[in-house]
Amino acid sequence: MTNIIFLGFGNVGYHLCNALYKHKHITVIQIYNRNKIVLDPELNHIPVTTKLSELKNADIYFIALPDDAIKSFSKDLPFQNKLVVHTSGSVEMNELSAINRKGVFYPLQTFSKKRTVNFKEVPICIEAESSSDLRKLKEIGEILSEKIIEIDSNKRAQLHLAAVYANNFVNYMYTISSAILAENNLSFDLLKPLISETARKIETLSAKEVQTGPARRNDQKTIEKHLHLLKDSRYKELYEQITIAIQTSYGKKL
Amino acid sequence: MTNIIFLGFGNVGYHLCNALYKHKHITVIQIYNRNKIVLDPELNHIPVTTKLSELKNADIYFIALPDDAIKSFSKDLPFQNKLVVHTSGSVEMNELSAINRKGVFYPLQTFSKKRTVNFKEVPICIEAESSSDLRKLKEIGEILSEKIIEIDSNKRAQLHLAAVYANNFVNYMYTISSAILAENNLSFDLLKPLISETARKIETLSAKEVQTGPARRNDQKTIEKHLHLLKDSRYKELYEQITIAIQTSYGKKL
Repeated sequence: MTNIIFLGFGNVGYHLCNALYKHKHITVIQIYNRNKIVLDPELNHIPVTTKLSELKNADIYFIALPDDAIKSFSKDLPFQNKLVVHTSGSVEMNELSAINRKGVFYPLQTFSKKRTVNFKEVPICIEAESSSDLRKLKEIGEILSEKIIEIDSNKRAQLHLAAVYANNFVNYMYTISSAILAENNLSFDLLKPLISETARKIETLSAKEVQTGPARRNDQKTIEKHLHLLKDSRYKELYEQITIAIQTSYGKKL
Repeated sequence: MTNIIFLGFGNVGYHLCNALYKHKHITVIQIYNRNKIVLDPELNHIPVTTKLSELKNADIYFIALPDDAIKSFSKDLPFQNKLVVHTSGSVEMNELSAINRKGVFYPLQTFSKKRTVNFKEVPICIEAESSSDLRKLKEIGEILSEKIIEIDSNKRAQLHLAAVYANNFVNYMYTISSAILAENNLSFDLLKPLISETARKIETLSAKEVQTGPARRNDQKTIEKHLHLLKDSRYKELYEQITIAIQTSYGKKL
């Protein structure tokens, strides 16, 4: 039996907790959050505290806090030599305080409170100082997912950077599309089959190979028409920048 | 029975032809392509020509050519008063020559030769000069899809512009992710569950609401770390531009 505690309870903490608490080899013995939280009914048997001084004795502590809070938070923990892991893609393992045993348990997925996550296919990137701690993280990871990856902080940072393009920036493109449609009283539903197919395509084909559109085929007339249609200067600038980047990628000499 | 001819046989022509030729109310009586083409075995009963002078008499002619070729091509057609439609998102109906009856039949989807398209959910945007021609296009559309939209050239242009962000630009973000991973000997497979979830999310939630990442939370430390990791200046510039756009969208005063 492994006793775990979540330190911070944002989207990542919430989803990890929900995915782990039912498993017979895991007990979530406590949740710490700086501010008071109300747990979902199925989790409300788990004790919650807002005080670090009340933290119990656990086998693994999962810090699930914003990236920029992890380092200083880990220094404030009132115990030593415990396995303390963070769940961030971009924070180095060594930003954790050396008073405890360090580790990383990074599920590579986007989490929202409103969506259930199927962890089975989510890559879980693990890192630890000792092989025994790595093994522990691997065991927990395997409860959730079929894809456990041992990866160091440098590679994880690159992976996280790639994920920023594939998720954050992609989602922002959806936001722009959505704004253009809204302004023209067109439903966003019209784009959903396209969005879905665009994502499915790269499961089997390379993104480089399936690129289409006015930028790809250097269709300057359509590009200029689009720039003319765009009223928001931010969207216009991005259109120009991305178009130039695509044209350069596919060999147009500027 | 409706007799149709495809003029041009790129991705759109290929997929429309494949989706229509089997239907009992449709006969694809000819395919025109400027250069010689080899048809798939299941289509090779359809006569192919490379000469406009050999074009047969059909009920509807589908121009499936690159956007910048449509206008002048439509002028070269050696017949009059026929229903001639193009399949482009961005070209106005009125760019078609007035010697024939004009129309548009634009399936809003991304097409690659290597992927089968399920047309059922693909919005088909139609436009015509007369209500009887519009009805004909609607009938053909309904053979393929449950979503037929009557939409004029101006709105279609806006829709196509939104589609450029949601498909072309999104795909380019995948390309950048893929390049970053390749450079670090990491498999693109690692991002597939994230990409899939990112696309699925906006089927039920708004893109604006689900935006996450360093830009969204103004995490300057992570942003700077990412800029430092990025070696390719194009990717770096896009990172900066999109980050600023996200920050501005979510209220950061710059």
